[in-house]
Formats: sequence, C-alpha cells, structure tokens
Amino acid sequence: MKTQPLKGMRDLLPAEQRLRDYIQNRILETYRSAGFQRISTPLIEDAENLDKSDGGDNLNLIFKVLKRGEKLQAALASGDASKLSDMGLRYDLTLPLSRYYAANKASLPNPFKVIQTDRVFRAERPQKGRLREFVQCDIDILGDSSPNAEVELIDVTSRALLDIGFTGFTVNINDRRILRGMLQAMGFAPETLDSVCITFDKMDKIGSEGVAKELTEKQLPENAIAALVDFIAAGDVSLDAVAAKCEDPAIANDLKYVLRTAEKLAAGRYGVAYCPSLVRGQGYYTGMVFEVTCPQFSGAVAGGGRYDNMVGKFLGQQVPAVGFSIGFERVCSILLEQGYQIPGAKQRLALVYLPELDFADVLAKAATLRAEYDVTILPQAKKLGKQFGQLEAAGYDAVAFADNDEIKPLGKK
Amino acid sequence: MKTQPLKGMRDLLPAEQRLRDYIQNRILETYRSAGFQRISTPLIEDAENLDKSDGGDNLNLIFKVLKRGEKLQAALASGDASKLSDMGLRYDLTLPLSRYYAANKASLPNPFKVIQTDRVFRAERPQKGRLREFVQCDIDILGDSSPNAEVELIDVTSRALLDIGFTGFTVNINDRRILRGMLQAMGFAPETLDSVCITFDKMDKIGSEGVAKELTEKQLPENAIAALVDFIAAGDVSLDAVAAKCEDPAIANDLKYVLRTAEKLAAGRYGVAYCPSLVRGQGYYTGMVFEVTCPQFSGAVAGGGRYDNMVGKFLGQQVPAVGFSIGFERVCSILLEQGYQIPGAKQRLALVYLPELDFADVLAKAATLRAEYDVTILPQAKKLGKQFGQLEAAGYDAVAFADNDEIKPLGKK
Repeated sequence: MKTQPLKGMRDLLPAEQRLRDYIQNRILETYRSAGFQRISTPLIEDAENLDKSDGGDNLNLIFKVLKRGEKLQAALASGDASKLSDMGLRYDLTLPLSRYYAANKASLPNPFKVIQTDRVFRAERPQKGRLREFVQCDIDILGDSSPNAEVELIDVTSRALLDIGFTGFTVNINDRRILRGMLQAMGFAPETLDSVCITFDKMDKIGSEGVAKELTEKQLPENAIAALVDFIAAGDVSLDAVAAKCEDPAIANDLKYVLRTAEKLAAGRYGVAYCPSLVRGQGYYTGMVFEVTCPQFSGAVAGGGRYDNMVGKFLGQQVPAVGFSIGFERVCSILLEQGYQIPGAKQRLALVYLPELDFADVLAKAATLRAEYDVTILPQAKKLGKQFGQLEAAGYDAVAFADNDEIKPLGKK
Repeated sequence: MKTQPLKGMRDLLPAEQRLRDYIQNRILETYRSAGFQRISTPLIEDAENLDKSDGGDNLNLIFKVLKRGEKLQAALASGDASKLSDMGLRYDLTLPLSRYYAANKASLPNPFKVIQTDRVFRAERPQKGRLREFVQCDIDILGDSSPNAEVELIDVTSRALLDIGFTGFTVNINDRRILRGMLQAMGFAPETLDSVCITFDKMDKIGSEGVAKELTEKQLPENAIAALVDFIAAGDVSLDAVAAKCEDPAIANDLKYVLRTAEKLAAGRYGVAYCPSLVRGQGYYTGMVFEVTCPQFSGAVAGGGRYDNMVGKFLGQQVPAVGFSIGFERVCSILLEQGYQIPGAKQRLALVYLPELDFADVLAKAATLRAEYDVTILPQAKKLGKQFGQLEAAGYDAVAFADNDEIKPLGKK
C-alpha cells in the first residue's frame, strides 16, 4: 500500500502543525477582535454552482466527485462523460460564501462581516509552492457598498499579518475598472482586456518595447498598441495619469480615498501603493482589487477585491461584497523559513515510567508537572541513552522519571 | 443557482460556529495538555488504500473523486466503471493516520501520542443525526502494546468531555477477542461472528427467546444457538462468566486491569462499565474496544479501540495502535440543545457611524471599546429602530455611536 500522500498534498508533522495552529489562531483572533464572525460551509459544492461561478482559470482545476449507484449507472449508459459528476470540491471560499449568504440572509446581520478559514482544492500541476489542497484565511464584508469596507479589510488583514510577525509587506491596490476603462478607451476590445492586462503587468520587466512586441504577437489592433506604448513610454503611470485616460475618471475618487485612508492607518508599519497593472485573475471582481506582496516571494501572499455581482446570481438581488484572503500556506512557509517560534511556549517534558509502577500514580505526577511543563507520559525504554536521543530528536527539552524527582535536561539545551 | 448546501451537509451560522470553535478548542486543549500532538493529513486518499482498509460498511460510503484529462479518457474508453476514480474522500481518521505513521515513522517519537481533529465524509443515506460531512476529534497512541495506552485514552477522552460540560456518560469497554472467543467455543463459525454479535447485542431488548429466534432465522448451527441461549438465560454475563466460556481466558486479564484503573481515575465523575456485547463495526479492531454512551442519545457519542494490524499493512512491520474518537457533531448537538454558553464571553457591541465621519477615527474608537466589548463597526442605518431590531436578532447586546459617548443596551437584556 502507498505510504506517501497524494501528489500536491501534504502530511503535517507535529512541530509544523503546532506552529500553523498557533499562527492560524492568532489570525483568527485579530479577525474576531475586529468584530468579524466565523462561519463554515461544506467542502463539496453543487457542480453547476461551481461551473457558473466566473472563477477564471480555477474552473479548469476543480476536483469532481463521482456520482454513485443508479445515478452513476444512468450517467455511464448515456455515454456523456460530463454527466459522471454533479458535485465538486470548492476551489475558493468566495463562491460558497455567496451561496451561503443567499441561503441564510434572513438570519445574518447587515452588513455581514464574516471570517472563513478553511481548506480549498485545485488540481494544479504539482510544482514547488503550488499545492492541490491548501488553507485560505478570508474576511469578507457583504452588504456595504461604501469604500470603508475596502479600508477595513485592508486594515484588519494587515494587522493580522503584523501580529504574526509578518513584516516588510506592501498592500497594492487598484480598481480594475480604471485599468480596463483606459485600455478600452485606447481601442482594445472588451474580450481582449484580460490578455492585454497580463502583458501590461510585465512593463517593469520588459519595458514599452517588450509590451509592444508581445501585444503585436497577440495580434491586437495596431492603433491601440501604439496608444498604450506611448502612454508607458511617457513614464507617468500615476493614478491621475491612468484615470485621465479612462472614460469615467470619477471611478478614481473612491480608490484615492482608500489609498489615502489605508496609508494613514498603516502609519508606516507597512506599505500601501497604487498598482496600475493589478487585475487579479478571478472574473468575478467588479471594482477595487488588492494584493499583498513581499520581498520573500514572487507572487502575492494575500489577495482580494470587490465582487458586487456574485451574491446576486444566487439571490436574484444585488448585494455589494468585498473580500480579502490570506494565502495561509505561503505566509506560513515564509515565517517557518525565518525560524518562527511560539512566544512564551512551555518547555516540553517526557515523563518516563517503568511498567511495575501504578499507572494512576504516574498520571497524577504528570498532572502536577503540567503546572510548569508541557508533559507527555511514555514507557521507559530499556536503552535509556537511545530513548533520550529519540526524545531530543522529537523536540523534547527534558526528561522526568515517575519514580524519583530528577529532571534531566536533554543535550542541545 | 441552488442556494442550499448539498444534502447531508451543513452551513454553520455564526452563533453555532462560535460555540463549536470554543468547544473544539477546549477539547484540543485537554488533549494537548496531556502531551498529545496534533497532526493533519490530506482529505483525499489513494482509492486503493481506502478500499483495503478493512473499514466495514464504511467502505460502501466513500465519495470517489473523478480522474481528470487523459486518465479519465482512458478509463472511459476501457468501459470499466471502477477505473473512473483512483482517489476518494476519507471516511475516518484512522486509515490516514496509519499511512502517515508508516510514511513518517523516522521523524516521530515512540510511542507516538497524536491528535487529529478534522472532517471526514460518508455518503450515508441522509436522515436526522446522520451527516455526510462531519468532524471527528481523535487521539491515538501508536507504538505502545501495554493496556496503559487504553487507560490513558479513556482518561483523556473522558476529561475532555467533562471539561466541556458533557456529563452523565458511561465508558463501555470490551475486548472483542473475548466475545468472539466465547462464540467460537460455542460452535459459531468465524465468518458468522459479526452477524451473531449484532443479535447478541440486542439481548437486553429481545431476551434469550428473541436471540434464539433471530439466530435461527439466520440459519446458524442449532447446538451453537442453544449454547448461547442457555448462557444468556443463566443471567450472568459478567466478565468472569464470559471469559470462562472463552478458549483463552487469560485475554480477560488486561481488560480487568483497564476496567479497574479507568474506574479509579473516573473517581465517580462518569461511569465505567464492562459491556459484553460491544464489538464496534470496523473490521480493523483487534482487541479492546470502547464507546461512550449517554442518556441523551441512543447511539455512541465516542468510540475507539485497538487496531494492531493496520499500520503493519503500510509499514510491513507490526505497530501496536489504539485510538479513541469523539463524535464531535453529536456531542455539540447535545450541548447546544442544553443551551450551552461560552463562560466569560465579552458582551457584543455594534459601533454605528455616519458616513460623514472620518473612518480612521471610527476605527480608533472601536479599538478603545475593545478593551471591554467584542466590537463590530457598522454604518448607521437611516431607520435606527429597524437597525436596532436586526442587531438584537443577530445577537448583539448593545449599540454605541461613533459621534457620542452613549452606549444603548438592546431590548432583551
């Protein structure tokens, strides 16, 4: 039988699990203390809901759950492979939240400030840093169309990161309507905007000439390419400059407010920046988008934005919504590489006992030692030296004996 | 689009989630303070591992994950429905733990005292109290063949239940080898023992005559049925009486030790009882089995036992193992029905603000109020009375205003 976990998935050893639990609880604590409330939804969602969720490339990465019994027989008889499954594992927490809100709106406060920290699944091609099962930590505000919702999500998410000792990051903000508005005004067709944005995002690396080359290869209109290249070459990609090229420059006002207020709240503890090329992959975003970047990682460690149309698909009535998701795996792996330690953790003690002792007495002695140590009870091995070595390797700080008062520190300390 | 969760699965509203998180953290805290360490494994496991796991009826309840891309095409072309899937959602936490231990043994302490609290999936026919996605809270000891492992699991699990205010329960204990040993000595064939046990378990309800009738309907040997019926009719199903009928009465010694020591540790706070008919459904149990029962629920709220052969299937080397799993959903639903309250929880306050205020100032005021309250910031509605009603319904205790110092308690208090 196979002993390794499936590809792209991970077993967590006790030391890493302990750090992850601690970090996740700290993040939850920041979220909760800001008045957000945790909910949860099933890991499995209706396939049709997932398929219609406007999730961009993620829709190709859904793990589908096979039908059972008679339904499976009927699907097989039909010869139509698409009928084999009517459920799938969720690829994010935003689609389930939208469905949840529509189902439970009458019981929820308005606006609803909500936490989700849970697993999601994507059948990514396995590679370093890409998992097929991973944890996201999301906060969302549903029912508030004001840009204060964006401000609060940015403030709370940033404070959660600072609180776990994650520093040196920048919150990048944009409104995808401004970028898309500019590109459309330049002559790019609406259906090509995603592709144009991908190239535009590379301008720092490949320069205006590289942008021109790549867009030409994509066979986009010459005059639109020329307008964009001229704009980049002019060297001013400030918010005012981009907004001036947009059909509706008023959209920029809320973005300016969010940038200004978020920067005031950051008070120099982290960066807040306008990022003209930021769009985020998911098709469901409708306005402002944001992501957290840091020098330790090339991609984003957190991302989010406003998705005012998604709840409406379920409810038949538009509900403004905005969310911010911390990529927990990435943040944890960066913290762990930095040698993260749990502040104030007790020393770990192994209390070893011989089989002839009364086990109830051993348990009572452990209970007393727990005032000062994190105590595990273990049978005493015949080869004490070997046992000490194993305990040290497993992270124990000291050994105590059930039948005397000695406490022996282990080697490395 | 469908707004309800899939059948047999649940959305959790904020109030219930809060109680569940609190209860789960308390259970985890008891487990951790006893020196157990948490790990986690992926929700998806290799299909072959699941199929060969000796999980009894649960093997028929596995949600299978559909293959993708070329592998799916090849499976369809083969016309063999069993090839459509090579992964499944786990139905318990014991099989994944056994695989995990085999994969990571070199990095783990010996014995390994481990916690798992996580979701599992079973495609049960939906009915009240039966969910298709649910949480189990497990502790296991791997690498210790002594009955002290059983004693410690029973002690820690019982203390976890007491700590969350779950009282009035009994830990029922048996060794399935004793029951099976007696039945085999009476003349029942090994492959019929599971079926005989199911009938024997009903003796309190249907009496010796009912047992005789049911076993005769099952076409089991007459002389074996007569031996069992005589034994029940004699009225002594004590451990000594059963063990005396068993081929190897020495097996009873460890069970007597566990019963005696567990009762001493219980110190009257919960019941400890020998249950002659207890077998537990899973085929992987090899020795002692136990379960927690209580007057509020007809089935077990926790169950476990020794499974000394499961890790060996992965490792090729036998590793003694024993586990105890709390059925978190059942325990929570019983506590919630009893009106469970989180001890010492702060009052919940809604801080409402008008749009013209400086939002950074509103956030600062919230931070000050958080010393005393659990504070959520909300835009002030035009119809204040209606907003107060909604906040009260959503569980808020009071409302504060960003532009003055009043704190208004909500109606019910």
